[in-house]
Amino acid sequence: MTKKQPERKRLPFHPELIVFDFDGVFTDNRVYVDENGIESVVCNRSDGLAIDFLRSKIPMIILSTETNKVVARRAEKLRIEVWQSVSDKKEAVMELCDRRHIQPAKVVFIGNDINDLGAMKVCGYSVVPADAHPKVLAEVDHVLEKRGGDGVIREFCEVFMGM
Amino acid sequence: MTKKQPERKRLPFHPELIVFDFDGVFTDNRVYVDENGIESVVCNRSDGLAIDFLRSKIPMIILSTETNKVVARRAEKLRIEVWQSVSDKKEAVMELCDRRHIQPAKVVFIGNDINDLGAMKVCGYSVVPADAHPKVLAEVDHVLEKRGGDGVIREFCEVFMGM
Amino acid sequence: MTKKQPERKRLPFHPELIVFDFDGVFTDNRVYVDENGIESVVCNRSDGLAIDFLRSKIPMIILSTETNKVVARRAEKLRIEVWQSVSDKKEAVMELCDRRHIQPAKVVFIGNDINDLGAMKVCGYSVVPADAHPKVLAEVDHVLEKRGGDGVIREFCEVFMGM
Amino acid sequence: MTKKQPERKRLPFHPELIVFDFDGVFTDNRVYVDENGIESVVCNRSDGLAIDFLRSKIPMIILSTETNKVVARRAEKLRIEVWQSVSDKKEAVMELCDRRHIQPAKVVFIGNDINDLGAMKVCGYSVVPADAHPKVLAEVDHVLEKRGGDGVIREFCEVFMGM
Repeated sequence: MTKKQPERKRLPFHPELIVFDFDGVFTDNRVYVDENGIESVVCNRSDGLAIDFLRSKIPMIILSTETNKVVARRAEKLRIEVWQSVSDKKEAVMELCDRRHIQPAKVVFIGNDINDLGAMKVCGYSVVPADAHPKVLAEVDHVLEKRGGDGVIREFCEVFMGM
Repeated sequence: MTKKQPERKRLPFHPELIVFDFDGVFTDNRVYVDENGIESVVCNRSDGLAIDFLRSKIPMIILSTETNKVVARRAEKLRIEVWQSVSDKKEAVMELCDRRHIQPAKVVFIGNDINDLGAMKVCGYSVVPADAHPKVLAEVDHVLEKRGGDGVIREFCEVFMGM
Repeated sequence: MTKKQPERKRLPFHPELIVFDFDGVFTDNRVYVDENGIESVVCNRSDGLAIDFLRSKIPMIILSTETNKVVARRAEKLRIEVWQSVSDKKEAVMELCDRRHIQPAKVVFIGNDINDLGAMKVCGYSVVPADAHPKVLAEVDHVLEKRGGDGVIREFCEVFMGM
Repeated sequence: MTKKQPERKRLPFHPELIVFDFDGVFTDNRVYVDENGIESVVCNRSDGLAIDFLRSKIPMIILSTETNKVVARRAEKLRIEVWQSVSDKKEAVMELCDRRHIQPAKVVFIGNDINDLGAMKVCGYSVVPADAHPKVLAEVDHVLEKRGGDGVIREFCEVFMGM
């Protein structure tokens, strides 16, 4: 529990796109599986408020390796674009930037695991939750105080986006 | 875990209405999303006992910004009135007071996030769980020891209502 | 996490019946509610093993104030008898003892909240999880190290029943 | 939260099979039960990545005492073979080894509870999560830092398999 607000910081550039990993960022990386094979994940209402805050300010997209449609359902509710079944996130970021005529150096990437590392390195700024993988923690620009699913996007908005 | 009971306190007035925010008060602010888009939240049986205790003593209402019907389902089970899709809680409180001929100064508001602040300020007394947003913690009359979803209403009843 | 096993103790009598409260004992007192009003609770596989261990040794019953059929579903799986919608557990214990020709002094009661207190006092021995209500903690014979839902029945079996 | 990576170790032999217990290893040993009796468990995406890593390197199987099909659903998604309703895991390991012409001494067993002890003793190497049963912790070759459901398989892969 963070009783005081984290210190405000500045991004080194004005971001033209925010790319989110889903599992471990919007969620605590857990997946609930029922006996019919239906998957659920647990998200945070405070991230919902943060996404609403960001919506008018900056384009956002979720890139997920997962093929399960639970990501799509959450993205729908939050009204964010999502690419699923992404096997190489670095390639996906390059393609996204190409299509939208954005330099990767103007992209913020928020991820948590080693399969995000390639994409993180080509993006201008990388942010992870406190419980990201140790190898990832060692290589990113900013480590948030929140753990995945505890309001990571909210903290990002409060630290960097003036929420 | 609180092994001893919190100290009893007195409200500064006899409340004529208790207004509850839902997410972050009855719940830990998390939402479970399944692959069909069905949402769930996690509530606490000990709050159910507290609501039963309050029922005969004082009118209660839940105000929620959420449009999802999970709030309505929980309110139904607890037999509390609920207003959903409330975009401005301060306005909703004013309208409620107007309709019921109550002064806002005689209303207790239990919330947790910055979208509760406006309503909290017009109500006579404001109470939040221990893990409320830092900006909210700084402005309220009483901070409970319990976190959202851990029995916030129960602790409120034990501290202030003689349960 | 308990890394060493709790010390073994002896019950002051050979029990003829074990009465369980459900919520807060088999569970962490939380209830998951979905948007269709379907409730779920979270139980522990280690309690399942403990119930299997007890089955041949001593009769067991669950008494619950809840009317929701989730208790019945779990009791069915564990193959324990259950009485639901019990408004007065002390009365229920007395009736049970009467029907089965057992003295309440030969009954062990495992509960967690103030609505268990009456029943606990008429039973020969009372046991609660570590996170039982403070008023209850003050009045019982034994407080377990486990919290509700973390394997309360398992610890009871290991401490008192030689599991 | 493990901020630094656990130290790498070597298995004392080249494993020809990895046998997993399910509940308490892939999960935190909890089971979600809804009012229709539908069970769910909570698994970790980081174990999914680990299983993908192991797939091409070494055969794997899940042995579970549980009869509920939730184990089968998760195993299906992870594309691992599973034997359910296994009442004696030691016997099952012996039969597996016999069928596949493997020596038990070349098998790694990852379990968590006392019903895994027999199988653990015949296998060449035994690994458990940090919150395994105290009796089990005392008898195994390696205790991981992660608790059940927090990424046990992932840590196993990072410590022993060069992930």
